[in-house]
Amino acid sequence: MFTDFTTEQIDEVLHEAWEAFQVYRKLSLAQRANFLRSIAVELENCGDALIQTAMQETNLPEARIRGEKARTIFQLNNYASFCEGGQWLDARIDTADANKTPAKPDIRKMLVPLGPVLVFGASNFPLAYSTAGGDTACAFAAGCPVIVKAHPAHANTSEIVANAIKKAAANCYLPKGIFAHVHGASWAVGEALVKHEHTKAVGFTGSLAGGKQLFDWGNQRKEPIPVFAEMGSVNPVFLLPEKMKTSSEEIAKLYAASISLGVGQFCTNPGIIIGIDNDDLKKFTNTLAAEIKKIAPAPMLNAGIYKNYVEKRGIALAQSEVTQIEVSEKKAGLNEGTATIASTTATEYLTNAIIQQEVFGPYSIIIKCADINEMIAVAKKTEGQLTCTLMATENDILQNEKLINIVENICGRFILNSVPTGVEVCLAMQHGGPFPATTDSRFTSVGADGIKRFARPIAYQNWPNALLPDELKNENPLAIWRTINGELCK
Amino acid sequence: MFTDFTTEQIDEVLHEAWEAFQVYRKLSLAQRANFLRSIAVELENCGDALIQTAMQETNLPEARIRGEKARTIFQLNNYASFCEGGQWLDARIDTADANKTPAKPDIRKMLVPLGPVLVFGASNFPLAYSTAGGDTACAFAAGCPVIVKAHPAHANTSEIVANAIKKAAANCYLPKGIFAHVHGASWAVGEALVKHEHTKAVGFTGSLAGGKQLFDWGNQRKEPIPVFAEMGSVNPVFLLPEKMKTSSEEIAKLYAASISLGVGQFCTNPGIIIGIDNDDLKKFTNTLAAEIKKIAPAPMLNAGIYKNYVEKRGIALAQSEVTQIEVSEKKAGLNEGTATIASTTATEYLTNAIIQQEVFGPYSIIIKCADINEMIAVAKKTEGQLTCTLMATENDILQNEKLINIVENICGRFILNSVPTGVEVCLAMQHGGPFPATTDSRFTSVGADGIKRFARPIAYQNWPNALLPDELKNENPLAIWRTINGELCK
Repeated sequence: MFTDFTTEQIDEVLHEAWEAFQVYRKLSLAQRANFLRSIAVELENCGDALIQTAMQETNLPEARIRGEKARTIFQLNNYASFCEGGQWLDARIDTADANKTPAKPDIRKMLVPLGPVLVFGASNFPLAYSTAGGDTACAFAAGCPVIVKAHPAHANTSEIVANAIKKAAANCYLPKGIFAHVHGASWAVGEALVKHEHTKAVGFTGSLAGGKQLFDWGNQRKEPIPVFAEMGSVNPVFLLPEKMKTSSEEIAKLYAASISLGVGQFCTNPGIIIGIDNDDLKKFTNTLAAEIKKIAPAPMLNAGIYKNYVEKRGIALAQSEVTQIEVSEKKAGLNEGTATIASTTATEYLTNAIIQQEVFGPYSIIIKCADINEMIAVAKKTEGQLTCTLMATENDILQNEKLINIVENICGRFILNSVPTGVEVCLAMQHGGPFPATTDSRFTSVGADGIKRFARPIAYQNWPNALLPDELKNENPLAIWRTINGELCK
Repeated sequence: MFTDFTTEQIDEVLHEAWEAFQVYRKLSLAQRANFLRSIAVELENCGDALIQTAMQETNLPEARIRGEKARTIFQLNNYASFCEGGQWLDARIDTADANKTPAKPDIRKMLVPLGPVLVFGASNFPLAYSTAGGDTACAFAAGCPVIVKAHPAHANTSEIVANAIKKAAANCYLPKGIFAHVHGASWAVGEALVKHEHTKAVGFTGSLAGGKQLFDWGNQRKEPIPVFAEMGSVNPVFLLPEKMKTSSEEIAKLYAASISLGVGQFCTNPGIIIGIDNDDLKKFTNTLAAEIKKIAPAPMLNAGIYKNYVEKRGIALAQSEVTQIEVSEKKAGLNEGTATIASTTATEYLTNAIIQQEVFGPYSIIIKCADINEMIAVAKKTEGQLTCTLMATENDILQNEKLINIVENICGRFILNSVPTGVEVCLAMQHGGPFPATTDSRFTSVGADGIKRFARPIAYQNWPNALLPDELKNENPLAIWRTINGELCK
């Protein structure tokens, strides 16, 4: 057990971060990339102690933890390369023109870091979206020091990773304040961290209640700061009629696996499946039920998350027009999540907000629509999502433009004939979406574009070449992509 | 006089905007660009009626209004070209890789519009930052319908421009809801507009009180929305010692003109000048005083702004350690602003928050520092700014790294040996800055990058080439810049 940080300790941490910012923001892209790569090396060096501790604290199986560690290391190296490449700086140069009236000055713009970034790790990703995860990597790449508020559910894992980051910082001769690791089980610690004057941005992955609270605190400050909270989704899946004619059983099998993957503890877990109430949907439902029955219950991340799952699922199933279809056959052990499928009518979905709420765990509800118009009504009623998925033939898509357009407008990632679980770490990834999926749909928390959450443009006007940052010098010493007088070039 | 819109009228306007959004967001970049160019043509067609009305409502001289009209037309055409170029879409393509474990899907990302954008025009830019100004052009380029809340101080000018936009929309066969013009002198109209469920973003240029209120309303919604408010600045100017040795009189003349330009009614007006208390600063002060004395008072935008200027200036001058240095020699007529120079000590600046507040009008205060350390202390105490300016030799810059770094960190545009007034409309421009200059330093309100305020990324996963938007198709039919598997190419 760790003791909550006091207000004095938090103040000290943020002052050190602020001092470190003055040094770190002036380091080159190559130096920032080197630091990220050094963290990756130190993380690798953590060896089995890290794996064992993470397994113990999260109940996640060894293969998953090892995979997540590899992913975290990949992210650090991938973002390091992108950081170094400099394309993300959006460097723009407009040269002077004395012949214009009034004379046009020389103006050059690039992104610079915001300042110390506060990161709240995710309970369901103890490595890839926690202490040295995506938010931390993005902030370091942007040029910002990081303060991690350790997730109380995996505080020891966090401590091991934090020490790896500190070792990497020392290897790179960075000031102490470049990284801090703060413990705090109470919300007061989070509030003090968000509201400290030296905190300049926040990254968060977790629940709607938690993320929205951080967002509100960020906006209530004397100087409001950006709070990027990724708060999960129900990730609706729309089953279109022609596709369902030939593939209902195949889709059901695919989705049984997706719904129960990682005991349903992914923010991209498909929680709502919308189909047209006909024989194909019945066949789909029956196959899904048969598959779900076979899925063995498995331990959830912790007792709190298990309790929450049982409670939220209970509330959903207690709604008058909701029917439980099937659950895992095998009896669940201590804190084990039982896969569960329910169904309801579109009418109920349209009038009962509870149905649309996320049940974090291996639970999914089928929404039966009378026809495509009712499916359109359901799409219209649906809030912002990280992902939406269509199971559809080309014909389904061409004939249902209205529906497709509505669905496209509510999601950050639009998937065709696949499952939403599995978030590829690549530049083209968008892991974000309209509220309540996130607090700002204009940014992503997966993929190197996430760096932009923590940077702002600055324009230099009338500076001599020698005094400009290297990124903006005439001779382009870093060989980065820049837009010069409207033309992108290297 | 115009009547305030009722809640019912506002609801109707937003519903029409929402319907129009479904059509407009699917139009090509070329079609959006065509609409912007058509607005430019219709604005040109407004002829003398527009000039006369704007002059009457704002007291601005004819040359200024004609210049501003030309600038507005330039902006519309410039943003049209940038929109069409497609570079701003940040298109990214990561192709599938079946050999990876798990298999990597095809993912492609680009920016899509947020939805109806609400624009509040600026009192001091009746054309370039009002009805068909920068925010409106950016929103249309992004693919968003626009609702303009007419500025009550130039409602007739706004009405003429609104009709030009409506004509252009009709020329382009766009749905009626693509643009709406709403009158409302009371704050209740603004509140209802910001809080309407179909409003998806807000652009604003004006006072801190007004912008912060819109920002709070935007965040208090069930679904928070981005509110980009540009709220002005005091635009500090730092006079460095070596430069002052040789150029104090020249700088004073340059700044007398900048302080009084447009009766000081620019958001980039230099309100605070920080120097080291020595003979050079005395020479500077004396020359500035002599110049200011010669500047004839001129009518301010309206009686309200005049009243506000007199009041705020009065409060500033009433502070115990503030001395009035000089005012315009000529007596002011009705609602005419008198150029005024004051001075105070760094100690007073550091302890009295009133000194740092913007006095909107031709007013500037000189902050006398004992030495460079006190200048550093002043920089540290200064809040976020649209611009900061250094008057400095290369030596001054090399020898005062600490000061330079602090100043750089608080501004959106960093000017060397020039004046902050005059905001070039170009891609490299950053017109924004840390709070309270704006509500989000990560965006700009001048230059085509301002389009990004109103767009969000969406990723398409596993879509066949034929069904993808043209921007993301393999064959790149629009010939736009895209990052494919990490490489930027066309």
